[in-house]
Amino acid sequence: MSPRRPVIAFAMPDSVRHRVFPARSMEQYGAIAEVAGHLTEFDSAAARRVLDRVEVLITGWGAPRIDAALLDAAPRLEAVLHAAGTVKPYLDRVVVDRGVRVSSAAAANAVPVAEYAVAMIVLAGKRVLPIARRYRDLRTQFDIEAAFPEMGNHGKRIGIIGASKIGRIVIDMLKAYAFEVVVYDPYLDDAEAAVLGVASVSLDELLRTSDVVSVHAPSLPSTRDLVDARGIGLMRRGATLLNTARGELVDQEALTRRVVAGELFAILDVTVPWILEPDHPLYTAENALLTPHIAGSLGEELGRLSGAMLEELRRIARGEPLLHEIEPDLLAITA
Amino acid sequence: MSPRRPVIAFAMPDSVRHRVFPARSMEQYGAIAEVAGHLTEFDSAAARRVLDRVEVLITGWGAPRIDAALLDAAPRLEAVLHAAGTVKPYLDRVVVDRGVRVSSAAAANAVPVAEYAVAMIVLAGKRVLPIARRYRDLRTQFDIEAAFPEMGNHGKRIGIIGASKIGRIVIDMLKAYAFEVVVYDPYLDDAEAAVLGVASVSLDELLRTSDVVSVHAPSLPSTRDLVDARGIGLMRRGATLLNTARGELVDQEALTRRVVAGELFAILDVTVPWILEPDHPLYTAENALLTPHIAGSLGEELGRLSGAMLEELRRIARGEPLLHEIEPDLLAITA
Ligand SMILES: NC(=O)c1ccc[n+]([C@@H]2O[C@H](COP(=O)([O-])OP(=O)(O)OC[C@H]3O[C@@H](n4cnc5c(N)ncnc54)[C@H](O)[C@@H]3O)[C@@H](O)[C@H]2O)c1
Ligand SMILES: NC(=O)c1ccc[n+]([C@@H]2O[C@H](COP(=O)([O-])OP(=O)(O)OC[C@H]3O[C@@H](n4cnc5c(N)ncnc54)[C@H](O)[C@@H]3O)[C@@H](O)[C@H]2O)c1
Repeated sequence: MSPRRPVIAFAMPDSVRHRVFPARSMEQYGAIAEVAGHLTEFDSAAARRVLDRVEVLITGWGAPRIDAALLDAAPRLEAVLHAAGTVKPYLDRVVVDRGVRVSSAAAANAVPVAEYAVAMIVLAGKRVLPIARRYRDLRTQFDIEAAFPEMGNHGKRIGIIGASKIGRIVIDMLKAYAFEVVVYDPYLDDAEAAVLGVASVSLDELLRTSDVVSVHAPSLPSTRDLVDARGIGLMRRGATLLNTARGELVDQEALTRRVVAGELFAILDVTVPWILEPDHPLYTAENALLTPHIAGSLGEELGRLSGAMLEELRRIARGEPLLHEIEPDLLAITA
Repeated sequence: MSPRRPVIAFAMPDSVRHRVFPARSMEQYGAIAEVAGHLTEFDSAAARRVLDRVEVLITGWGAPRIDAALLDAAPRLEAVLHAAGTVKPYLDRVVVDRGVRVSSAAAANAVPVAEYAVAMIVLAGKRVLPIARRYRDLRTQFDIEAAFPEMGNHGKRIGIIGASKIGRIVIDMLKAYAFEVVVYDPYLDDAEAAVLGVASVSLDELLRTSDVVSVHAPSLPSTRDLVDARGIGLMRRGATLLNTARGELVDQEALTRRVVAGELFAILDVTVPWILEPDHPLYTAENALLTPHIAGSLGEELGRLSGAMLEELRRIARGEPLLHEIEPDLLAITA
């Protein structure tokens, strides 16, 4: 059976569209679908004419909200493909309930975050960045093992908070190293943990025994301060907290105190607020590294997002099931 | 057949022995061998008494030289197990020629170097460390993709110089990423390259086309300035040179000029001299990261070295072939 040619429209700010869908990517979409238009809102008469025909909406960061009103305006809509991470801020659950299939590039976006986390876990175990900083300050030979006790990546214990999409990729990538990996996730049963090849432990045990704690749970009302001041207090002297998830998951004040005291190391891609106040002590603490929310797809990694949704569009054209269709019942516990 | 109990002696400075062979490791050696003594030199009467009986010497960094005179003093010597990287500085070739088997932990020591290199390749592709530095300086939101064009780890080309022990582990680890990997090694034929799953290219092509160039060749008379000023000149604007091998392999002045000019990035675990002069511009260049020769085994990674040689000792006790026996004909092209 030859594939059909779905009618599609892109809905996101132009600046986002140009970054995520460069000319070559647009050609690929155009080759398998009819592009009815590029929308930045759903209300104008021009937008209404496009929506009237559209079968598949391709959305991205900053897309207009997809809700009951949009469904009324787009009677033929059968699928929403979100070429970015989580689709939750853009999607009213009614859309899924009315049978529109929704897929997102959250799985594709998970890849660079996991790669960032694994690289940082390796560097953390070996104290590479604090050593580089010390070397830059001293500019002479110094006794590295005395200055950084317990350094080295052999037999270290890595604690993964959240067997999420990202957490699972990290767990898988860490198999290439001589680490012991433990995981905390209340939604992971022992059989699933065994399949992942990791031991499931309580959050307290994870915090108390891990050399590097890497946070990969979603930010939900139930996960606010998941690692609270008491949890930070459980962490071993010399342990590292790595957060590429969301700042809300960690008691940042308690963490900052122990990092500034030289007891813990922190590598934070996410904080509260998003950009820390200029006088925040974490900017200059020797034991901390801050990055401004860059672990997810950026630059040339954006091609992975448009590529993942192109594959979903191909599947729609061929009448095949989607690879990453969102299960509405899981929305409450996903990022 | 029950294993024999070889007579062994440790030969290295006490400080090295205590770092590489902690009490638990010593117990493991004692369980399968008779420990005749701990030597720091081969000349005293006490050392002579131990050498007279020794069958296997366990050596490490700073060991006394193992040459014809040592062979005369140790008539029963059948193997040397070097619990460190290269054994070349400590070994006269005559030892191997007279039938003494030699093994080293160079393969085990390769692991942390490869792990360091892979972590840095991932961070380099995404500009993580320069972005962290910029963020620390600006302490505000900035347009990251505009400031760091071509960032992101998707489809980047990684050029590996030297399919050495370390180079091969790096090539293997990089299979987990969406990179294209090319290699330059005059001793690697196309069939071997195919087995490694990489394309073999000329050094010029590697330098001209790679986004990250990672140096893993040994330092030999023939590899001095392997990446010379002309080669540095071939590298793409925005490319990264990562050197965990030896500073002598790269024209450091030519590299420094292009890094300071903002055209290249550099991550150097090794330089000439070993510790750069305090006023060297690479310490403060935004595009450079220096570490003081820490990629190899340090701290808890030293356990991997004593563990690898313990395994070789077990094989001797059982009459089995060694896993990492040195082939004397390859000494000329190995690190
Ligand atoms: N830094 C970045 O650039 C970046 C990019 C993408 C995602 N993220 C963040 O990374 C995190 C993981 O994202 P994802 O897409 O892999 O998540 P996900 O949607 O796959 O996570 C859902 C899973 O998390 C686990 N979970 C739920 N509640 C938990 C709890 N209380 N404790 C432990 N585990 C729990 C469950 O297994 C659940 O299935 C999120 O916080 C997300 O916002 C950051
Ligand atoms: N930074 C550290 O802490 C650290 C630790 C260990 C090793 N090293 C260095 O890493 C490098 C690799 O070590 P190794 O043990 O893997 O080396 P190795 O002994 O395995 O290297 C030998 C191989 O290098 C390749 N080679 C030889 N000449 C070459 C040339 N002209 N061009 C390209 N390839 C060539 C050949 O395949 C040869 O078989 C060495 O320079 C070593 O000194 C650094």
